[in-house]
Amino acid sequence: MMRRLYFHRDSKRGVKGTYDWLVEEVDELGEALHGENKEGLEEEFADVIAWLASLANITGIDLEQASLRKYPHKCPKCGGSPCQCTF
Amino acid sequence: MMRRLYFHRDSKRGVKGTYDWLVEEVDELGEALHGENKEGLEEEFADVIAWLASLANITGIDLEQASLRKYPHKCPKCGGSPCQCTF
Repeated sequence: MMRRLYFHRDSKRGVKGTYDWLVEEVDELGEALHGENKEGLEEEFADVIAWLASLANITGIDLEQASLRKYPHKCPKCGGSPCQCTF
Repeated sequence: MMRRLYFHRDSKRGVKGTYDWLVEEVDELGEALHGENKEGLEEEFADVIAWLASLANITGIDLEQASLRKYPHKCPKCGGSPCQCTF
């Protein structure tokens, strides 16, 4: 869905510009975490994943495949499910 | 899946500590975007979405619901599909 909505726009913006927007949205998420507005917080999570997905699209990364390769239903560090890492 | 793997660990770490890890992973993604290692880049995307999902879990946000509420198959700003915003 994010590819259909934003691939053309963000391809023109470029990788650096799109990454910079992602960073800005992560900052806004950090601010929203301090507040009490749950609806606003939900919107900031949506914005972060939207920009992350669009950045993945314009860099040729399949986000779902990337996630399942690194996190194949167990922790990549300790192998546990749930994770047993102590850090 | 991220809830099963990391909810217990990241609940103990807390919202601030988990958010700080997310920011660090976003930084690492930014560095990987400058390189030529596509497999490494894919791993950094996986780490960002993993920490984002875990942060959503410990703050009581459903990431899929959040995304579809804000991005209901059209751009929330212009209503377009694809987006017609000019910024």
